[in-house]
Amino acid sequence: MEHIAVTRTPHLPSLPVDPSVHPAWLPQAAFAPLGSRRVAVAVDDSPVARTVLAEVTAAVAAHGGESVAPGAADVELALRPDAAADPEAFTLTRAAGVVAVTAADARGLLYGLYHLVRLGEEAFTGADGTWTIAPHTPLRMLDHWDNIAVHPVMGQVERGYAGGSIFYDDGAVRADLTRVAQYARLLAASGINRVAINNVNVGPLETRLLDDLLPDVARIAGVFRPYGITTHVSVSWAAPVRLGGLTTSDPFAPEVQEWWARAADRVWAAVPDFGGFVIKADSEGQPGPFAYGRTHADGANMLAAAVAPHGGLIHWRAFVYNHQQDWRDRRTDRAKAAYEHFAPYDGTFADNVIVQIKHGPLDFQVREAMSPAIAAMPGTRVAPEFQVTTEYLGHQKHAVYLGRMWSQLLGFPYWGTGGRTLADVAAGRHPDGDGTRVGGLAAVSNVGDDVFWTGHPLAQANLYAWGRLTWDPSADPVAILDEWIGLTFPDAPAVVRETLHAVLDESWETYEQYTAPLGVCFMVQPGSHYGPSPDGYEYSPWGTYHFADRDGIGVDRTRATGTGFTGQYPAPWCDVYESLETCPDELLLFFHHVPYTHVLHSGKTVVQHVYDTHFEGLERVLESVRRWTETLDAFPADLADRVTERFAEQVRSTTDWRDVINTYFLRHSGVPDAHARQIF
Amino acid sequence: MEHIAVTRTPHLPSLPVDPSVHPAWLPQAAFAPLGSRRVAVAVDDSPVARTVLAEVTAAVAAHGGESVAPGAADVELALRPDAAADPEAFTLTRAAGVVAVTAADARGLLYGLYHLVRLGEEAFTGADGTWTIAPHTPLRMLDHWDNIAVHPVMGQVERGYAGGSIFYDDGAVRADLTRVAQYARLLAASGINRVAINNVNVGPLETRLLDDLLPDVARIAGVFRPYGITTHVSVSWAAPVRLGGLTTSDPFAPEVQEWWARAADRVWAAVPDFGGFVIKADSEGQPGPFAYGRTHADGANMLAAAVAPHGGLIHWRAFVYNHQQDWRDRRTDRAKAAYEHFAPYDGTFADNVIVQIKHGPLDFQVREAMSPAIAAMPGTRVAPEFQVTTEYLGHQKHAVYLGRMWSQLLGFPYWGTGGRTLADVAAGRHPDGDGTRVGGLAAVSNVGDDVFWTGHPLAQANLYAWGRLTWDPSADPVAILDEWIGLTFPDAPAVVRETLHAVLDESWETYEQYTAPLGVCFMVQPGSHYGPSPDGYEYSPWGTYHFADRDGIGVDRTRATGTGFTGQYPAPWCDVYESLETCPDELLLFFHHVPYTHVLHSGKTVVQHVYDTHFEGLERVLESVRRWTETLDAFPADLADRVTERFAEQVRSTTDWRDVINTYFLRHSGVPDAHARQIF
Repeated sequence: MEHIAVTRTPHLPSLPVDPSVHPAWLPQAAFAPLGSRRVAVAVDDSPVARTVLAEVTAAVAAHGGESVAPGAADVELALRPDAAADPEAFTLTRAAGVVAVTAADARGLLYGLYHLVRLGEEAFTGADGTWTIAPHTPLRMLDHWDNIAVHPVMGQVERGYAGGSIFYDDGAVRADLTRVAQYARLLAASGINRVAINNVNVGPLETRLLDDLLPDVARIAGVFRPYGITTHVSVSWAAPVRLGGLTTSDPFAPEVQEWWARAADRVWAAVPDFGGFVIKADSEGQPGPFAYGRTHADGANMLAAAVAPHGGLIHWRAFVYNHQQDWRDRRTDRAKAAYEHFAPYDGTFADNVIVQIKHGPLDFQVREAMSPAIAAMPGTRVAPEFQVTTEYLGHQKHAVYLGRMWSQLLGFPYWGTGGRTLADVAAGRHPDGDGTRVGGLAAVSNVGDDVFWTGHPLAQANLYAWGRLTWDPSADPVAILDEWIGLTFPDAPAVVRETLHAVLDESWETYEQYTAPLGVCFMVQPGSHYGPSPDGYEYSPWGTYHFADRDGIGVDRTRATGTGFTGQYPAPWCDVYESLETCPDELLLFFHHVPYTHVLHSGKTVVQHVYDTHFEGLERVLESVRRWTETLDAFPADLADRVTERFAEQVRSTTDWRDVINTYFLRHSGVPDAHARQIF
Repeated sequence: MEHIAVTRTPHLPSLPVDPSVHPAWLPQAAFAPLGSRRVAVAVDDSPVARTVLAEVTAAVAAHGGESVAPGAADVELALRPDAAADPEAFTLTRAAGVVAVTAADARGLLYGLYHLVRLGEEAFTGADGTWTIAPHTPLRMLDHWDNIAVHPVMGQVERGYAGGSIFYDDGAVRADLTRVAQYARLLAASGINRVAINNVNVGPLETRLLDDLLPDVARIAGVFRPYGITTHVSVSWAAPVRLGGLTTSDPFAPEVQEWWARAADRVWAAVPDFGGFVIKADSEGQPGPFAYGRTHADGANMLAAAVAPHGGLIHWRAFVYNHQQDWRDRRTDRAKAAYEHFAPYDGTFADNVIVQIKHGPLDFQVREAMSPAIAAMPGTRVAPEFQVTTEYLGHQKHAVYLGRMWSQLLGFPYWGTGGRTLADVAAGRHPDGDGTRVGGLAAVSNVGDDVFWTGHPLAQANLYAWGRLTWDPSADPVAILDEWIGLTFPDAPAVVRETLHAVLDESWETYEQYTAPLGVCFMVQPGSHYGPSPDGYEYSPWGTYHFADRDGIGVDRTRATGTGFTGQYPAPWCDVYESLETCPDELLLFFHHVPYTHVLHSGKTVVQHVYDTHFEGLERVLESVRRWTETLDAFPADLADRVTERFAEQVRSTTDWRDVINTYFLRHSGVPDAHARQIF
């Protein structure tokens, strides 16, 4: 290995910094503690290593430090080759006034560098000691639902609330990928190491990423590579027909297998460290193996065989259900679909297939039950899927911090309190598994070409928290929030930090308060999924019903009298949810149909709980706005303006939610509010 | 006047007949009774006269008749100049074995010719006599909501259910206007004499019809002219800004007035017999004079001054209401809007302004009250507006004949039974008017470039009936239906005619049965307006609410306890509607909020009425399908296939309507069906 010192590399890559774009959690000032010291770097010449060097060089140049030889340094960053070590792990040692970060691979060193940045002055002033820090799972992924061609309904970014795409501009991959480079740097500094660059709903143009658009894929991969990020592409099951001119996509047809093998050859020839394919098949109208009488395992394994010679992965999504359901049919329960479609095939998926399962059995609701499918496949690599973009959680117009929600989901003890969690399953530690089946964690990104990246500037916190939680699902989400605040607003007075903390900390719970109550789900406007529409999906083909009548509301999913969904859970949850006595309040209407006058564990009736939470939800938003307004002048004007504009819409929308939901429950139940507040 | 005999005109225009397009009510066979006879024509050389000659020439050529000199004819068609006569009227004389049609103008002669065609053999075999037949009003108009540029949401034809536009193809006026010529002929044969060729929602491209697209307007006008049809264009209030580069559209600004005057000069220079402008201003987001603090009268009169020197008309739409209403605000009632916005300005509109008012105060519902604004403006030319395209009536997927509905609306006695009607107002015969203020009748067309013109072939009957009713609002709509059947299926056996009659005759009432009940309105899917969504608009900004709760449903529009809308009607209706005792059942929920157990005049409760009509509505549709299926083989295969396909969708949709509405009422009321039928 050749060690390259900073002083010997005059042509380092320049860091992707553009003062016209908000720096998110990597403002120049965040590098001051590191950059003001004497720093020694000893690395090889890999792309990621050069990023480490470039970061250090820029930091010391900006903050008055020095690049020095190892012996004279306050801070040392050095590779320590070790074939057995996790290439993403690093060791931090603080001793005798010197801070040393070592890693077996440049990727580990880059994570170590950003770790120092996150720690700030404390990195250098804390107590002596040694810490080895490794990620929870080697698969920490973000999926982009970005379309190359603007979709007539879904637009440039499906469920995107932050402007256009950083990758694409109305029909073509962008020539200038500067924003992608900036994004890659932000992701590396939060812990993400894989990105799927296009929407799982794959159109004709996007299908060509496997063909004549491959040079564009290679360009994007080249931008991600220096940040330790692997590129994946979403593919269409119909690609052999659309692109290859075949008459079938049957996974058992030799010409189809051959076509995919050649496609994989092409892709890896263009991008030798390519990650693999993500696929949404037989789902919401996308083509899939069902058309040929084949199973999801048949389909996934055929693709897996094509990419296996290259070390590639197949992320096969489990979001499969009947979206042409008849609302009159009470036997069918959409919540049961993923389990029914995938659990029977556990153990039959190839080693390089990852089944990607949404965390809830419906679709990213503010509160829904955990997906039992995630716990049901010990012989399969399972990646729980999350959503950073706020499709059902306010479109990045509402200030909603999701760290606490995700933390709760990641830590859900599928086999009872104290037992293995969702995060354990993702890391291959299913109690009935062999420990090798690592699926990792995946989520849908929330960025766009917006100057603040995320539409609502405070929604940056979600992207940051997602990365940090994939690295360490056990991390305290509130500490992550404060970490994000500290990095993003490094020079702000304490009151700014306190305000942001107060506005965001329990904002998920606040959002739950003013929207659909008690796990009832889907009281949103159909299509857009923004704003209230209590009966919006009640008679639709989407399988999302609550059966409200003048007496009660909720979905009976018990084994005793309902759809039997509770039976998909391992103990104790199959019984906890089955029983009206033990079912948690917040999921009551997800599992049971009850009278409006049913008394919750809280002691309140369902309907009074609805009234109280909806009045309180708006009050909490108004309190956030009050605090925000008081602190406004301490923020940069452009950011302050944007947040203020978003708060105005949030207040309007929250008021609408409060009044529509309260009115709906009052009209149905006839039960007046115990406190005689205004309901319309 | 030079008389041109058939034999002296070898270069007549060819009739626009294309065997690949369905002939609608002008199949070749319909001309057999006329074409098999000896026909003499004596006309001038006007475009319409040449159409008369062309029709006769083609008919005799096809059916073995002869063109002869007047003395030797079985049938004579001749101009009889008379400056005082209605140029569209004609006189039919049957005497001594000769049938003579005379008219003061070629337009009257053309109508007389089509009258003979409609009468068929009976035209020549009936009793002797003389009949002078004139249209009810000289303004019989169809509006097209066709866009030149495909609108991202509304498409090529807004609320169009018959394919693309016959005028435009994705961004441009069609080079080939053959379909327009065919359409013009069909319209002339039904009685229409004015067409507005573009959507009242005017986009940037459509604005250019006043400018660089004027040659296209002239081409279209040239196609309509030989059929006695005058061309109008919809304009944008913002045209002076968009097109003229002005900074204002203020009607009081001299440069705006000047701009419109020059625009009118340009238009009439290109089309000397141009009709005028249609405008939707300050309505659903369209710009208008409100932005400048001016009234609708200010706006309309400014435009009127610009077109007056050319004899032009301004059709100013009264569809003005607050579409950003707060559903919590019970004082505002969208039904009151047209009256409130326009009635105060009665008498102040210029002589060439026609205020175009939808027949109901909401928006073309299957059953709503009459618009009181139509009766409130004796000093104004008022054109009631109808909708031939079935926006809320099944998208031309459901077989719904609207003749009976329109007949009822046209004959509505605004001042009590036996008194003046809506049709009288349209003809200038308002009881408080001076008889000169003729607004005529207008409707939105239902045709597109579909091979059957109207998507559902049986929806042709609506286009035909609309034309016939504008000519004679007192005509029996059932006779018109049979007339359409006879013309369109001239050689069909009696069973075909009986089937079509049975399927269509009471189909409007059937549609009412299975959709929103008792005048409650707007239980449709928002946006598309197809299919049931009982609460779809309940919390929306569109001002269309029914306030259903567990106890009752309906809108209290009384003066005593409601919005006061009933006070906008003249006697006796202001009292008839006010009183729960006298309000007609079919409008009960339009005017009153009542318990589900309220007993109708029919003796049934509201909720049992809902159940019964919804079960019966589907039964009636199934009976229509049964009859249709039995007769299927007697129809041309392509038409039979299309109708059969539509019926399949109608049955699916009707079943959905039945079950959703019944379920909604059952869930809200808790009242079981007296006959224990299945409700979900």
